[in-house]
Amino acid sequence: MTAVAEIAVQSQAFAAVNFITCRSEYAQRFADMFQTRAHAIDRLDGFRGMYVLAPNAPGKPYLVISHWESEDHFKAWTKSPEFLEGHKRAFADMKAAQERGEEPPMHSQFETYTVLAL
Amino acid sequence: MTAVAEIAVQSQAFAAVNFITCRSEYAQRFADMFQTRAHAIDRLDGFRGMYVLAPNAPGKPYLVISHWESEDHFKAWTKSPEFLEGHKRAFADMKAAQERGEEPPMHSQFETYTVLAL
Repeated sequence: MTAVAEIAVQSQAFAAVNFITCRSEYAQRFADMFQTRAHAIDRLDGFRGMYVLAPNAPGKPYLVISHWESEDHFKAWTKSPEFLEGHKRAFADMKAAQERGEEPPMHSQFETYTVLAL
Repeated sequence: MTAVAEIAVQSQAFAAVNFITCRSEYAQRFADMFQTRAHAIDRLDGFRGMYVLAPNAPGKPYLVISHWESEDHFKAWTKSPEFLEGHKRAFADMKAAQERGEEPPMHSQFETYTVLAL
């Protein structure tokens, strides 16, 4: 399957990038989860599109890039039921690792941006 | 001016991200150069779109994200006259700083990616 999307990118608008580093043995599970994602985020007001960049160099972070009408729209998503729905399997994996006394299978960090130029 | 673009993003396709850190006194010049960019890259075969993300947190890198049909198309750009044309002012600034014996006004590093999911 080759999906194609036209991502609406607007200058002065808002984007969030989640930098995710995952353990090598977790990479396939991580890819599978995105490729069968819930698409819950797609229902949010102000959402303009998202995609995932997988690093070609091993060990570098994945970039999960989402575009929004404004920072407020992004923040509303992080507090929404759709945020929990969209991360349900990942959160369960993290919890299970913790219960087994293991290191988390991945680490993530959000950074936020303003679209500067097209 | 609020420019809008529909970036064609395709799964399994190629993206390059240039992580650029610039000195605070150079930030306005840096933004100006992108907002009046030559659009030379837009002429390249296999080019699908680009945009710049300016960090909301000071000191973090800018992300210059370009989408391509394949890595070969991206590599062809880096060896093209359009690459030199598109970076003409930036390369001149770097050279001038070097001639004055100053630190470079910015540092950049390319990372390459495969689009994993939409």
